[in-house]
Amino acid sequence: MSLYLTIREMHKVLGQFNVWFDKATAHATAKKYDPETMLHWRIAPDMFPLSRQIQTTCDQAKFAAARAAGKEVPSHPDTEKTLGELRARVATVMTYVDTFKSADFDGAGDRMVTTPRWEGKKMTALDYVTEHAVPNFFFHATTVYLLLRHNGVEIGKKDFLGTLTFR
Amino acid sequence: MSLYLTIREMHKVLGQFNVWFDKATAHATAKKYDPETMLHWRIAPDMFPLSRQIQTTCDQAKFAAARAAGKEVPSHPDTEKTLGELRARVATVMTYVDTFKSADFDGAGDRMVTTPRWEGKKMTALDYVTEHAVPNFFFHATTVYLLLRHNGVEIGKKDFLGTLTFR
Repeated sequence: MSLYLTIREMHKVLGQFNVWFDKATAHATAKKYDPETMLHWRIAPDMFPLSRQIQTTCDQAKFAAARAAGKEVPSHPDTEKTLGELRARVATVMTYVDTFKSADFDGAGDRMVTTPRWEGKKMTALDYVTEHAVPNFFFHATTVYLLLRHNGVEIGKKDFLGTLTFR
Repeated sequence: MSLYLTIREMHKVLGQFNVWFDKATAHATAKKYDPETMLHWRIAPDMFPLSRQIQTTCDQAKFAAARAAGKEVPSHPDTEKTLGELRARVATVMTYVDTFKSADFDGAGDRMVTTPRWEGKKMTALDYVTEHAVPNFFFHATTVYLLLRHNGVEIGKKDFLGTLTFR
């Protein structure tokens, strides 16, 4: 159950990206600069630019859902060159994540997962999501957010978290 | 079970802070600047400086563990002024988080939690950790990491994630 909630949380934060992009575009318009310049912003010269940070956040959500459910991971080549194309990438991954149901993650404590970089090593799906997918997802999502924030876009913590499930 | 793993993940990432601080101090020494200057670095002028980002990350781990277990949250006034004091704060919170056992989180799907800012509104402990504590924890941890990275400290993704539980 809680793995499903985690996947839904990733879906929600990806949805918040559109709020950030809207405010970033409005900021660019107000300041009279081309909003596409933001795609090249970096925290450090040897880190990925904003565009790749967006793609990587999308990938972490996709990998988390597919691997934890024991399904084949769909390929999304990183070919996006514009903010519009990156919005479409986010939408595609959100639609993909929407296909997962809570029952898809039953038994994730015993399911073994691996990634191409691990040279045959494995983690349980539950450990993988907790120790790898969630930290990486939020690392890249926060990098996207902070790159915008650093450059003057007026986003706040509520735009990061989105709507909370109050009862 | 998985809430416990999440709390342990927070504990692990807090432990990684010491790796980042060690590399940051070595960087300052090599570049001949006072390492304490880093405590004032900010991503944007109206964001918290590094010192407060560290304190806030500590708080998110403490809040997550205590609230999800239905326990009183210990108070840690934000009085640290030096890197040494901030390392001590991290150590204190790690020791506190170490006191929690898996069984402390039994029934977290039904336990209701609130925070002083929510004006009486409540979330289940499971939703709270998933939608609030984890995103906030990693938001502030990533901000600490990126502030160091932006200023030239040679830390990498492995320093962020720490050791993974391979089987």
